[in-house]
Amino acid sequence: MIAGAGFAGLTCARGLKNAPVDVLLVDRNNYHLFTPLLYQVASALLDPGEVARPVRELIRPLGNADFRLARVTGVDLERRALKTDRGELPYDYLVLATGSQSDYFGNASLAKHAMGLKQMEEGLALRNRVLSRVEATQWIGDRERRRNMLTFAIVGGGPTGVEMAGALSELIRHVLKKDYPHLDLGEVRVLLLEAEDSLLATFDPALREAARRSLQRKGVEVMLGARVADVTDQSIRLAGGEEISVGTVVWTAGVRGSEVGALLGVKLLRQARVPVDKTLQLPGHPAVFVIGDLAGAVDGANPLPMLIPVAMQEGRRVAATIGDMVRNGGASAFVYKDPGTMATIGRNSAVAQLGRVRLSGFPGWVMWLTVHLVNVVSFRSRILVLINWAWDYLFYDRPIRLVLRAYDDHPD
Amino acid sequence: MIAGAGFAGLTCARGLKNAPVDVLLVDRNNYHLFTPLLYQVASALLDPGEVARPVRELIRPLGNADFRLARVTGVDLERRALKTDRGELPYDYLVLATGSQSDYFGNASLAKHAMGLKQMEEGLALRNRVLSRVEATQWIGDRERRRNMLTFAIVGGGPTGVEMAGALSELIRHVLKKDYPHLDLGEVRVLLLEAEDSLLATFDPALREAARRSLQRKGVEVMLGARVADVTDQSIRLAGGEEISVGTVVWTAGVRGSEVGALLGVKLLRQARVPVDKTLQLPGHPAVFVIGDLAGAVDGANPLPMLIPVAMQEGRRVAATIGDMVRNGGASAFVYKDPGTMATIGRNSAVAQLGRVRLSGFPGWVMWLTVHLVNVVSFRSRILVLINWAWDYLFYDRPIRLVLRAYDDHPD
Repeated sequence: MIAGAGFAGLTCARGLKNAPVDVLLVDRNNYHLFTPLLYQVASALLDPGEVARPVRELIRPLGNADFRLARVTGVDLERRALKTDRGELPYDYLVLATGSQSDYFGNASLAKHAMGLKQMEEGLALRNRVLSRVEATQWIGDRERRRNMLTFAIVGGGPTGVEMAGALSELIRHVLKKDYPHLDLGEVRVLLLEAEDSLLATFDPALREAARRSLQRKGVEVMLGARVADVTDQSIRLAGGEEISVGTVVWTAGVRGSEVGALLGVKLLRQARVPVDKTLQLPGHPAVFVIGDLAGAVDGANPLPMLIPVAMQEGRRVAATIGDMVRNGGASAFVYKDPGTMATIGRNSAVAQLGRVRLSGFPGWVMWLTVHLVNVVSFRSRILVLINWAWDYLFYDRPIRLVLRAYDDHPD
Repeated sequence: MIAGAGFAGLTCARGLKNAPVDVLLVDRNNYHLFTPLLYQVASALLDPGEVARPVRELIRPLGNADFRLARVTGVDLERRALKTDRGELPYDYLVLATGSQSDYFGNASLAKHAMGLKQMEEGLALRNRVLSRVEATQWIGDRERRRNMLTFAIVGGGPTGVEMAGALSELIRHVLKKDYPHLDLGEVRVLLLEAEDSLLATFDPALREAARRSLQRKGVEVMLGARVADVTDQSIRLAGGEEISVGTVVWTAGVRGSEVGALLGVKLLRQARVPVDKTLQLPGHPAVFVIGDLAGAVDGANPLPMLIPVAMQEGRRVAATIGDMVRNGGASAFVYKDPGTMATIGRNSAVAQLGRVRLSGFPGWVMWLTVHLVNVVSFRSRILVLINWAWDYLFYDRPIRLVLRAYDDHPD
């Protein structure tokens, strides 16, 4: 049984296709989310159906996999049963791949006022917020109040923060400017706050600097060494005491393992990750594996980063191990191969670091486009995403500028 | 000033493009919804971005139009001001085009338990409901309980009810059946309840019968002469006393003018429509026009139906009248020209009635496809809608089977 249908869980299920096992995938959502493009949902470029696919559609070709929609509420390691809000599910082997969530480091003001960008719902809420705020300023006569409503702070200078800041600045300056002839771009601020002294810490220094310059050209104010101490609904206070008038705060500066980790009754590592053996097994419980962001796997002394390639490689490794174990073999150690990383800064600009290759600017952007388009999960999504990207590129237009109010239903 | 950015209001704004006036469109949503395809959102075929366009994008080419996002809360006819939840807006001429809403005829059980299909949010809520229910039955051992959860009743045999019932039955029988190998289609019921003794009352009798047969072939149980008396969350009771076990009720059997009508302080007509002169002016208030579903315009003795062609023609007429009035001319009477009606029953089947032409089955379906594709509001949407339709047609696949939980933000 696999808990979590993200990149780790789905890759593991696919790896078990030809193993003599029945696979049951459990997730609280009925879809797999292509998280690298979530910021494009938030910036009104893509629709939800273009970055998410139903899990059942993805596992249909496997033949030996089924799905249950449920939230994990506990793990009974002795009786070998996964507890969920819908009932208990017995397992022979359990793979925990429930991913990560935003980490506000116990700061209640952040948890209350900052918006996350990890789930589909958070992407849609952020899209609604940006569009509603710009729309609402049309009614506001007071210039200071308008400036506050038009100031968006992205906290965290990792790839998600960099991509979101670039996309948001482009959305407002290129697209919304056409919608709002009276909008004074001098009243708009997009801030990118990073506590350390450079963006994209995992990248080569030359690429970090290229990213910073590129963001600034796009109108993003990059603030380095800016540690957020406190947030209200109208401001950010920095650790140094400085207070900034900000209407919307997006938090991308911290992630921690999902809450499922705490249900295991083991001492968690840094970032609430679950300690695992070299074989990705839970120590003392050879039938339980932990993979993806939730797993605290190490490469030598260093914990592996929470990245999709790590998750997918771990999923593939564990699928092979389970295949071996049911054939009475043993578990093998996991070894991570770094394929490189990349981040896009918007139109015509990205940074990429693949082995010894370093790309920035337009070549980096072409590389980013290609890798992401090839990896979008289905052929149909590829066509639709390509059309939307081309539309945006040619016409400086974001097609999905819809403020959809919250709608609710009472699912069983 | 125009209140409402539906087909009536938008057509009126477009008709005023070359008039020496400033147009202000006011709507509670920031988008124009292509309502004829809303049932395709509800049946997981299209994404919101494909059936809705931002109002600001649509009015950009007009040059003399602006937009305000607000909900109408009153009309001060003496002081010539539109009251909204955001503030007051003065007008010289006012066009009320706020459309219609579901009418439950004062039946509290209906209002509480039935789902509507007029707004984008309702279409998304219905999609969530259908997908969640089918998913949830995977946990249910009790056959009767499963049957109840898998019974969907569409109330109302007009075009919306017919289209929704056909699309829902196809979604479950062709698409979801592949996702759920264990789903027993014998436990699924899609009912279409109509109080009168035939479907599609406005169509030719031969077409009505063709529609009924086509729906039955698609697995829809058509119940004629079935008047709903009462609804609970697990059943429908008919006027004759019969009780049917039903898990989901969709209400398309009644519409009434929007609540803005009641704010005018005039006696409303049947279906809460606002009485108007032949010129579509509010009697005694020549600066106020009412168009679209909200307007109780008559053709001879008969009230005009709540249809898009009526709304668009009224919008065009009023735009011309206002153009004449600002040039010191007078108002002209509105005359409706019926272009015909059509309804689709699903894959390969539709009925169309255009002048003396009557089409059903496959030819009707081709006509329906063509007319709707040409009329989808933008070129980009046309491409995307066409891809999704082709995908569905070729692969019996509905791409957007995502259960998106309610997400909320606090817009200003």
